[in-house]
Amino acid sequence: MNHAKNDTLIRALLRQPTPYTPVWLMRQAGRYLAEYNETRKRAGSFLALCKSPAFATEVTLQPLDRFALDAAILFSDILTIPDAMGLGLYFADGEGPRFERPVRDAASVAKLFAPDPHAELRYVIDAVAEIRRALAGRVPLIGFAGSPYTLACYMVEGGASDDFRTVKTMLYREPALLHRILEVNAQAVTAYLNAQIAAGAQAVMLFDTWGGSLSHDAYREFSLAYIERILGELDREHGGERVPRIVFTKGGGMWLEAIAGCGCDCVGLDWTASLADARRRVADRVSLQGNLDPAVLFSTPQAIRDETAKVLASFGAGDGHVFNLGHGISQFTPPDHVAALVDAVHELSPAYHRRA
Amino acid sequence: MNHAKNDTLIRALLRQPTPYTPVWLMRQAGRYLAEYNETRKRAGSFLALCKSPAFATEVTLQPLDRFALDAAILFSDILTIPDAMGLGLYFADGEGPRFERPVRDAASVAKLFAPDPHAELRYVIDAVAEIRRALAGRVPLIGFAGSPYTLACYMVEGGASDDFRTVKTMLYREPALLHRILEVNAQAVTAYLNAQIAAGAQAVMLFDTWGGSLSHDAYREFSLAYIERILGELDREHGGERVPRIVFTKGGGMWLEAIAGCGCDCVGLDWTASLADARRRVADRVSLQGNLDPAVLFSTPQAIRDETAKVLASFGAGDGHVFNLGHGISQFTPPDHVAALVDAVHELSPAYHRRA
Repeated sequence: MNHAKNDTLIRALLRQPTPYTPVWLMRQAGRYLAEYNETRKRAGSFLALCKSPAFATEVTLQPLDRFALDAAILFSDILTIPDAMGLGLYFADGEGPRFERPVRDAASVAKLFAPDPHAELRYVIDAVAEIRRALAGRVPLIGFAGSPYTLACYMVEGGASDDFRTVKTMLYREPALLHRILEVNAQAVTAYLNAQIAAGAQAVMLFDTWGGSLSHDAYREFSLAYIERILGELDREHGGERVPRIVFTKGGGMWLEAIAGCGCDCVGLDWTASLADARRRVADRVSLQGNLDPAVLFSTPQAIRDETAKVLASFGAGDGHVFNLGHGISQFTPPDHVAALVDAVHELSPAYHRRA
Repeated sequence: MNHAKNDTLIRALLRQPTPYTPVWLMRQAGRYLAEYNETRKRAGSFLALCKSPAFATEVTLQPLDRFALDAAILFSDILTIPDAMGLGLYFADGEGPRFERPVRDAASVAKLFAPDPHAELRYVIDAVAEIRRALAGRVPLIGFAGSPYTLACYMVEGGASDDFRTVKTMLYREPALLHRILEVNAQAVTAYLNAQIAAGAQAVMLFDTWGGSLSHDAYREFSLAYIERILGELDREHGGERVPRIVFTKGGGMWLEAIAGCGCDCVGLDWTASLADARRRVADRVSLQGNLDPAVLFSTPQAIRDETAKVLASFGAGDGHVFNLGHGISQFTPPDHVAALVDAVHELSPAYHRRA
């Protein structure tokens, strides 16, 4: 299994020449794969799966065995950090993540601490190291964390929300309290990602899933400022290799110039953005990742190929594009359709790259 | 009750000079008001409330009696059209709207028809006329409808959705089928809004609540194209008065230039957009409506005033701004906070307008 080293992802993230456009998929290891569901069953629960480096390694590699993906991404969850803070993460049946002890007042904020990645979060760092060994250079490994604001949404709301009423009430009523949470989260994410880098993550991604629910001004103050702070303190290299950083704010397409200036190498875009517009706006500074609508994967292999061609054509000729979905893959995706997508990217994209 | 005529809203929508910035709130008649809940109880249900011109008139006027709002908006629901198509609208407890007979195949699409606004939708048109009489010129009355794509989301999904899997599968797999639904919806909305105008609606608004869930290209093809078609066929004037049109695509801030070119007089913006940026991009062509984060209303009167000041300052000096929230008001809003908002707009905005 000692495959030739495929560094296409890293090169594309850094806007270096590549022979084709690399592709990976957010949430590529997950419930749409029967083998994932089988492993999860053996693990007993989603959390048990996350907390076992052996199981996490197993599921991280599963999609690579099915599809010619150009990257692996650590199998984990953004809520490992608030879980390690002692907030009591659990998953209610069919309801998504919940916290037993949400953070809603000064007393609970005062108790917050940045967990030690080598203590409370040791299982994640061990998983990174184990996945790197298992990958044996096959493709690069992406580490990740949630953005401070996105973590705060869950910590304050106590779970998912469709209006973010609780966290936004805090934002407008007691901004200093929310800032304190965000500071602790930023410290925690910084230590966590640096530990992932030290353990072998070759690129890192910040998932700002809920930053797009903020107003134009509040996004800068409560989300992007903390992302910028983290990126300023992350290790730039490991073992002599540059570690590219990807920032993905879902719904952040309007704020692209600001995001491109936060210290990232690559901006992830959801499917509402135009890659052509985005490239015109910021491609002199960052690479772009995205942005096929995950719903395209519900259609047909031919429609998937056509829509993939449109995404590639929208970015156009040149380097600095990492193909991905505009959001995590749906659990209802037929795996054959993912194969059609990955093959289409690899077959159609060389035309957009100069021959080396 | 024969108040002096307040045409500030109409003038602002048409970018004519006004002494202050007019303000109204999406969903201003609703569950955050005790008097609304009382009327709804008497009506028996939300649908019964919508279907009774007398009750609809009563609740339309309730917020005007509490707050110095500059417009009334017809109390109704965007789903009156698919209900009139015979899809069997009902409201499951705490689950939002559902349809007994969703439209998912060629056979059900073939049966679709544009309802006659003077037959199946007569109760809405009667409500418009009755509200106009009750308003007696106090403030202008806004009529409205859902956009063809937003209606199609509910019709195909059979209710609300967080991933729009069914309608998007149709979009990518059988686009001709979805286009047929959208054509019928566009015909229906056109006839419906023209009937509202004839009955006395002095401005009309298209709510494209879910257009922002589409990809950049799909938005143009499946949502905006049909909005444009409707606006091309709407009556421009009634009784010698111009009838301004507002288009609001939630999450459409990135597509502002395209929306501003669809034939509308005013573009509604959600709170993620910057009014300053938006004005620079399109204010030579359209007025702008919005865009306070509705969550600001959960804070304090002082914070509400501060955030209102920021929205006004973001638009800056000049005409062509209609103050509103960036989305419908939440049922959890304290009514006193709405008063603080409306008063702040009226007190702070004259500084941004030239003296007549």
